[in-house]
Amino acid sequence: MRIVKPDEIETLKRGVDGGTEEQRKVVQTIIEDVQNEKDEALLRYTRKLDGADLETLQVTQDEIDSALAEMEDEDLQILREAAANIRSFHEKQVRQSWFDTKPDGTMLGQKVTPLDAVGVYVPGGTAAYPSSVFMNLMPAVVAGVERIAMVTPPSEAGTVPAGVLAAAHIAGVREIYKVGGAQAIAGLAYGTESIAPVDKIVGPGNIFVALAKREVFGDVDIDMIAGPSEIVVLADESARANEVAADLLSQAEHDERSASVLVTTSAELAEKVANEVNAQLADLPRHAIARVSIENEGGIILCKNIQEALDTVNSLAPEHLEVMTKEPMSLLGSIKHAGAIFLGRYSSEPVGDYFAGPNHVLPTSGTARFSSPLNVDDFVKKSSVIYYSEQAYNRDADKIARFARLEGLEAHARAIESRKDRDES
Amino acid sequence: MRIVKPDEIETLKRGVDGGTEEQRKVVQTIIEDVQNEKDEALLRYTRKLDGADLETLQVTQDEIDSALAEMEDEDLQILREAAANIRSFHEKQVRQSWFDTKPDGTMLGQKVTPLDAVGVYVPGGTAAYPSSVFMNLMPAVVAGVERIAMVTPPSEAGTVPAGVLAAAHIAGVREIYKVGGAQAIAGLAYGTESIAPVDKIVGPGNIFVALAKREVFGDVDIDMIAGPSEIVVLADESARANEVAADLLSQAEHDERSASVLVTTSAELAEKVANEVNAQLADLPRHAIARVSIENEGGIILCKNIQEALDTVNSLAPEHLEVMTKEPMSLLGSIKHAGAIFLGRYSSEPVGDYFAGPNHVLPTSGTARFSSPLNVDDFVKKSSVIYYSEQAYNRDADKIARFARLEGLEAHARAIESRKDRDES
Repeated sequence: MRIVKPDEIETLKRGVDGGTEEQRKVVQTIIEDVQNEKDEALLRYTRKLDGADLETLQVTQDEIDSALAEMEDEDLQILREAAANIRSFHEKQVRQSWFDTKPDGTMLGQKVTPLDAVGVYVPGGTAAYPSSVFMNLMPAVVAGVERIAMVTPPSEAGTVPAGVLAAAHIAGVREIYKVGGAQAIAGLAYGTESIAPVDKIVGPGNIFVALAKREVFGDVDIDMIAGPSEIVVLADESARANEVAADLLSQAEHDERSASVLVTTSAELAEKVANEVNAQLADLPRHAIARVSIENEGGIILCKNIQEALDTVNSLAPEHLEVMTKEPMSLLGSIKHAGAIFLGRYSSEPVGDYFAGPNHVLPTSGTARFSSPLNVDDFVKKSSVIYYSEQAYNRDADKIARFARLEGLEAHARAIESRKDRDES
Repeated sequence: MRIVKPDEIETLKRGVDGGTEEQRKVVQTIIEDVQNEKDEALLRYTRKLDGADLETLQVTQDEIDSALAEMEDEDLQILREAAANIRSFHEKQVRQSWFDTKPDGTMLGQKVTPLDAVGVYVPGGTAAYPSSVFMNLMPAVVAGVERIAMVTPPSEAGTVPAGVLAAAHIAGVREIYKVGGAQAIAGLAYGTESIAPVDKIVGPGNIFVALAKREVFGDVDIDMIAGPSEIVVLADESARANEVAADLLSQAEHDERSASVLVTTSAELAEKVANEVNAQLADLPRHAIARVSIENEGGIILCKNIQEALDTVNSLAPEHLEVMTKEPMSLLGSIKHAGAIFLGRYSSEPVGDYFAGPNHVLPTSGTARFSSPLNVDDFVKKSSVIYYSEQAYNRDADKIARFARLEGLEAHARAIESRKDRDES
């Protein structure tokens, strides 16, 4: 693992992948085909791209029942406990409508309403994770979204992993379609014979899914475009090298493009972690992936002092940040940009990936500068409410009309003044 | 004004304008030029597109002082009062960081942090409105954003309207650049010699601005793409036709593509409003614009009963909704989709456009189904915080490791288990 100085930080930053012109064209074609041919296009692309020859897209109750029967009881129990923790955390995010009344009778407020219908994309293949099903579905469930449609690409045999179906069942979602890629995004956005259109689409996917989401954005809402996963560990000399290395590798095993970075004030820890990473890599089942990730995207940044280390962390704006220092809580106020912040030795990232309750769908590629973890707010919208009283109107009408005329909008001024005529018309 | 039945509602709906392929190409070229040539490109496009030959982009303190001196005192006083109302409403939207502690010592929470830097686009020409300056700036100011950069296209003489500069001054924003169009968006997103890059760009603009925002989305965050403005008035026989007509026309004078729709249960009101609109149109200064808007985009939808009227309103998901019925408050719970809801006779839309306090930057083109008014949440981001205690770790470690192995992620399981080794390493 290379050890670099903070001024080499740019070599560790990654932008958001915008795709190639050719990929964009492919996605535009798929979207047009789905808009024109609907289910027929979905079934055709599923044959072509997933190798699955389906007759219908929707997962049946029988398939869900079989998935549940196939799972071991202990696993189901752990899934249920994780789901309960995730639900409980997200319930604390729920916001109420509010209003503010004035003595003159005026009421101003903000009405919070769940979205009518959302679509959730769950990747297929080796990235078909029950934990991701929970993390994407639960905020929508807790927000009170009436209709939640999940899409996921089937295997060549036309099946969906049991863990994925079990997780959807535990989260309380029954509307599941076997379709993935850009075609699934198009189906959700514009609707087909089988799939009614939704208002918002969330969930991670490959570059074609990301480009399709960008393409339909505006017609429907989307969540942030997700890039490869990242961890930054901020550690001082009190951290244990074997634990830091294990956490870095847990990120590296995801994907060759995952990034694992240690930011430390201790040259001794830097050396030890570099050695530990090599030692632990050797017997990991996914060592081939992890090695490429560590070599290409990993790094150790050695800083002069804790302030330089904090500046480095904020500049990286990582998806996951672990703080393994003597007093981690005291640094929380100095951390401006991070998707999720794990404090102290026992808050290893997988605690949050699976179990603690906060969402693991987090802003990547530096977008933690302006984006948030997936949360209940993503599944509600607000409406302003204005009830102006007669008394308030009489007090303010002339001022409002004058403001309108200052902007050259005479009809606005006249709309206000029309109330001065008290006759029925 | 045409009177239609609810089943003809589709003729009144408009999609989001995605621009032509040619417009997208123009925007991509401008963005690339700004990325490569920075200020030089900004100055060149400002000469070419706005006809202004500038040497520097930033508005000086002298220009701001002159603008304030140029304004009438009474106008400045009204602007200050409006700004205070807008600030007060948005202060109620501010959210605190929160945490939840468990008896085992675990702490889970959500940290709220303002964005570091945002850019605000203010349109030029006849659409350069002080009220829009307030509405776009104030949520960012209240959120605590440290750096707010405003951009607006200059006149051919290289000036910015006094009202716009005065409004920015009242809102407390000093960093203002004379640049508009796609080039301004590119400058804000990627930075130039004069303009440091920002994390998020908000504010309405023409199709080139909208396409540029869509193009830079991902590298920076953006607000929703705004379409032409809309009003729906929901009225029963208790409403006064002259007031309804005046409100419809206040929307119609904005733009030929603005939409003004009356949804009513009263055939008598429908007739009267149609006549009133014609009568009031005649002597409006902007009657040419308003007439095209009313003829092409306006309509009266006559419904059988109030439930059908409410369904129609929710289906339209209007930007502005006025409810002029006998008991407007009792209908609030049935309104699912609207950007801002104006209740009762004295809540004419301009009350909210200028003065009451809620934001007038609202979701258009049916996007109120999933979008909210511009608000303080748009200028903060959240980070999850996880502090797991040793006790909680000991209780949950085996379950978390088992969950990780269920997903085939051995390094995740080992990261958790690495804490079981209590030796220093």
